[in-house]
Amino acid sequence: MTVSLDDIQAAAERIQGRVRRTPVIEVAPGLTFKLELLQHTGSFKPRGAFNRLLSAKDTGELTGTGIVAASGGNHGLAAAYAARELGVPARIFVPETVPAAKLAKLRTLEADIVQVGNEYAEAYEAALTARDESGALLVHAFDQPEVVAGQGTVGLELLEQAGMFDTVLVAVGGGGLIGGIATAIGDNAQVVAVEPEAAPTLHRALEAGQPTDTVVGGVAADSLGARRIGDLAFAAVQQFAVKSVLVTDDAIIAARNDLWRNHHLATEHGGATAYAALLSSTYRPAAGERVVVVVCGANTDLTTLT
Amino acid sequence: MTVSLDDIQAAAERIQGRVRRTPVIEVAPGLTFKLELLQHTGSFKPRGAFNRLLSAKDTGELTGTGIVAASGGNHGLAAAYAARELGVPARIFVPETVPAAKLAKLRTLEADIVQVGNEYAEAYEAALTARDESGALLVHAFDQPEVVAGQGTVGLELLEQAGMFDTVLVAVGGGGLIGGIATAIGDNAQVVAVEPEAAPTLHRALEAGQPTDTVVGGVAADSLGARRIGDLAFAAVQQFAVKSVLVTDDAIIAARNDLWRNHHLATEHGGATAYAALLSSTYRPAAGERVVVVVCGANTDLTTLT
Repeated sequence: MTVSLDDIQAAAERIQGRVRRTPVIEVAPGLTFKLELLQHTGSFKPRGAFNRLLSAKDTGELTGTGIVAASGGNHGLAAAYAARELGVPARIFVPETVPAAKLAKLRTLEADIVQVGNEYAEAYEAALTARDESGALLVHAFDQPEVVAGQGTVGLELLEQAGMFDTVLVAVGGGGLIGGIATAIGDNAQVVAVEPEAAPTLHRALEAGQPTDTVVGGVAADSLGARRIGDLAFAAVQQFAVKSVLVTDDAIIAARNDLWRNHHLATEHGGATAYAALLSSTYRPAAGERVVVVVCGANTDLTTLT
Repeated sequence: MTVSLDDIQAAAERIQGRVRRTPVIEVAPGLTFKLELLQHTGSFKPRGAFNRLLSAKDTGELTGTGIVAASGGNHGLAAAYAARELGVPARIFVPETVPAAKLAKLRTLEADIVQVGNEYAEAYEAALTARDESGALLVHAFDQPEVVAGQGTVGLELLEQAGMFDTVLVAVGGGGLIGGIATAIGDNAQVVAVEPEAAPTLHRALEAGQPTDTVVGGVAADSLGARRIGDLAFAAVQQFAVKSVLVTDDAIIAARNDLWRNHHLATEHGGATAYAALLSSTYRPAAGERVVVVVCGANTDLTTLT
């Protein structure tokens, strides 16, 4: 099963008016930020959630029983937001380790919140059980075609907004965003996947030649801490020859501080991870190379950024 | 003396490449934010500072002696930044009341910082004396033609970026931004000036029929606390029939919190003041009215925004 460019174009039409077309800004010659942290709920996730819910509404799979989702935070916010906007109930399973800032936001979105276990995988098992018992629609955090196609609309917008560019740097958790963007961008530019050394889920899968369970941790684990890359993302990454690089937690912290001090953007660690590859010279552009960085998440505790 | 549309267009050419073309984002149907808080140094002020310095470079007024400026913060940052970029020394006079966040940023810009007095007016007197003694170029915070013309480039960009709009809401301190934007926008839209009730400098001037000294204070005084509106701004406000509204400090605080929680923008109080008029319904758009809000400053202590 793969996601196609047609799927992403259909998603863009389907979710139009539900998500914000986030702006780009050229912050230095040849360096452009895609400000996806300004999306509803503070991350790119509503794109995939709306595409999943609206697709299921068309097929009759979305009923008054509503949805279930499992999430370390951003996906739960997005799923709860999309459900509220579409008038169906949402039950969100989150690990007990979810940051207070994300939990506080979730509580404002009228979702039924269930805290379970220490990491995403346990919350996911609980969500599957709830789906089976209730008949609610499962909205996966990354490995469903509608979700990947929805996240891919970020790539379509980039092609329209950023003029010609050579490279786009994208942070990777479970792979919904990288899978969608790689498919949307195709041969128009080189896509580079950036992961924390402490959560190298895609990197290890590429080494192994297939998705594989990986030990995850580090400062960005709350948003990039999926243990296993999605099958859809892995297929897209291979098809479009995505490059994979790893950055240290120190580089992520430095990038997050730089984004605030020099660019006036308050991001979560996962939202600063793609930029960390550039700032730390882990990814070194050639002379004249035009680079886009997707800044993808704002759900942070500001007291950690001062 | 007035500033013309030609002056603003010349400024736009002069400062191109020195300032960021900040993006707009449609955050809801009919409501667009101009994200000028993403400008270099976190406010619109570099536009005017670069236009002043580059104009003076052309005429020979800018020499190796460099510049002096007085500022409650944002103008000082911008003047120091522009001077550093152009390779001339800067001496910045700031009130002793300047917030720690702004002072810390100033120290990173290689400027000679002098803290004097309790408010802008005292720092300004000290800057005038320093200019007279040294022959340095004075960069006024708001009431010089080159400064007003530079700030007006925000308005030119809006006309290009935001499509058709009916109204633009702009916060007012000394009036450089409102004077420039009103001149740039002309008859294309209604410009609305928003001030804190606690710092109603333009509002009182309009009541008096001329610039007049005003008692200023409140939560946004560090950026909107000029005691007297600039002559250039006052002339533009009258010429282009700018509307004037006042908002409470509580409305400013609520708008600043909303900008973070719902729009993922960390702003200073002055940067949230224009939006406060809308959020508090102090300014009520008509049905179908398309509104632009200029979000103009990010230099804030994040610990006050949690």
